[in-house]
Amino acid sequence: MSDPKPKFLEVYTVLKSELLDDPAFEFADDSRQWVERMLDYNVPGGKLNRGLSVIDSYRLLKDGKELSDDELFLACALGWCIEWLQAYFLVLDDIMDGSHTRRGQPCWFRLPQIGLIAVNDGLILRNQIFRILKNHFRGKPYYVDLLDLFNEVEFQTASGQMIDLITTLQGEKDLSKYSLPIHRRIVQYKTAYYSFYLPVACALLMAGENLDKHTDVKNVLVEMGTYFQVQDDFLDCFGDPEVIGKVGTDIEDFKCSWLVVKALERANEDQKKLLYENYGKADPACVAKVKELYQTLDIQGAFMEYESKSYENITKQIEGHPSKAVQAVLKSFLAKIYKRQK
Amino acid sequence: MSDPKPKFLEVYTVLKSELLDDPAFEFADDSRQWVERMLDYNVPGGKLNRGLSVIDSYRLLKDGKELSDDELFLACALGWCIEWLQAYFLVLDDIMDGSHTRRGQPCWFRLPQIGLIAVNDGLILRNQIFRILKNHFRGKPYYVDLLDLFNEVEFQTASGQMIDLITTLQGEKDLSKYSLPIHRRIVQYKTAYYSFYLPVACALLMAGENLDKHTDVKNVLVEMGTYFQVQDDFLDCFGDPEVIGKVGTDIEDFKCSWLVVKALERANEDQKKLLYENYGKADPACVAKVKELYQTLDIQGAFMEYESKSYENITKQIEGHPSKAVQAVLKSFLAKIYKRQK
Repeated sequence: MSDPKPKFLEVYTVLKSELLDDPAFEFADDSRQWVERMLDYNVPGGKLNRGLSVIDSYRLLKDGKELSDDELFLACALGWCIEWLQAYFLVLDDIMDGSHTRRGQPCWFRLPQIGLIAVNDGLILRNQIFRILKNHFRGKPYYVDLLDLFNEVEFQTASGQMIDLITTLQGEKDLSKYSLPIHRRIVQYKTAYYSFYLPVACALLMAGENLDKHTDVKNVLVEMGTYFQVQDDFLDCFGDPEVIGKVGTDIEDFKCSWLVVKALERANEDQKKLLYENYGKADPACVAKVKELYQTLDIQGAFMEYESKSYENITKQIEGHPSKAVQAVLKSFLAKIYKRQK
Repeated sequence: MSDPKPKFLEVYTVLKSELLDDPAFEFADDSRQWVERMLDYNVPGGKLNRGLSVIDSYRLLKDGKELSDDELFLACALGWCIEWLQAYFLVLDDIMDGSHTRRGQPCWFRLPQIGLIAVNDGLILRNQIFRILKNHFRGKPYYVDLLDLFNEVEFQTASGQMIDLITTLQGEKDLSKYSLPIHRRIVQYKTAYYSFYLPVACALLMAGENLDKHTDVKNVLVEMGTYFQVQDDFLDCFGDPEVIGKVGTDIEDFKCSWLVVKALERANEDQKKLLYENYGKADPACVAKVKELYQTLDIQGAFMEYESKSYENITKQIEGHPSKAVQAVLKSFLAKIYKRQK
């Protein structure tokens, strides 16, 4: 199977130039330049895993048969829609979180002359998804399902972001508001639907499937997405900054991380007190005390236990699926994330 | 024809409670309360003209025949979708503009505990539109056209907001960037599509019409929307604050207002110099100098001339339309705005 990345990047250029000549909006030079710069800065700079996995998934659903040029293009276009969705969320999340860097460069809103105009740029990104869908899928029998899918997933992601924001607000006054079920709920809505379910759902629609018949696929992908985020929380604290490319700050930022909720679950009263006093402070001494407590409570051991149980459970669900092609899709996702170090 | 407002407000309550029990997202008490408060604060407090005009327009398209309960409910629901869209834009615009008040109360993001979480609340509002559409229109033959319509209008509004933001940025360094064609473009995209075209387009879709066949209706409504915004710019400076309910600050805010572009067009070199030196300053003496220049250049006269020409032109377009029912819709819009004082 050839590497789809060069083709994927080529399609970005095509989609971008279509958007810069969109007949629904009369561009002038300054607005065209603004949008092009904004797109190049925010859309293609990530790992592109979500987008590329639409192509992989669609290939596997077609039993590995070579895709026609047209099919490959459409799979790439849907992949890019997910990357656009991700860019939209990241641009706005960075503003809300007051972040400084993203993908090794300053956040878009931090650039001179941008500032809060970035809020509207986020909306432009979001709207371009539906321009791409209209340009390339308007005549397809699954067009309306595609619109419903993107709308539903966007709604769930925004709702997940809402509970994350509300929970952090409450957590800042009262750490006991953090719990495993709440953590799970945030992760499921904020990350799992769009990162794991959406790429496969796009591939299923392209393959002519009815999504209502695939709730089991959705469930297992949401499960994988949850597992992925727990890994993320773990790596934020225990990963190698050289390997993951950033220094984690979940402890300083009072995040409702899997580690802190697991620690709250395992801690006695004294240890809870220590957590309450040191969690969410920028002071390195406080951070060190939290990390020390994580060691004492063997949170690393708890994570390894979670990881193997989760893997086992996901594998069992996958193997129970009637379609070998769907199994292959799900297994390829799982293989990419199991025991990852970054 | 009975007043549709009580029914319209009743439908708000129904739509809200459906959203608070949306099966696509597992609400907990805190998130349900958050959303309810956010909706009540931001959605129903305006004049509701845009929403109500869907009902009026649909009635007129049906030649004034009484609507069935079901039809009335659906027209109200579409009207609320436009009010939701408006709320979404206003919540985010206020953040970008650093505004303080809206509809006589503090802007949503100014409330304690809200701040930039308001960005995500804006996204929630936007996403709820598509939940409402899915709940009530999924089975209708025009469902996909409705989705395309809302997506296209949202795209155009965000694009208009973009050129407004870019133009203000450039204007701050160079007032000569402001011109009538640019003002027109901003107004057309940022306001006219969603405020004037969208309500009628919703009514047309409900009446079984194909929007592609109604570009003339779109054009005349965009024309009316432009005229409406020019009035708005005029009232910001020359309206009675007691009547319009706020004190205008377009001069202080360096807005690309119809008045300043008209003044630039009429000014000689000395007068231009005066404008360049005083426009966009908070100092009341500067504002007074700009207003004085507007008097000298008879911008009020220019406005009255614009107003009568625009009215004439719009009326001619309306009377050329083959359908009496469509004419009635367009005339009712025009009657509501012609020579308004607020």
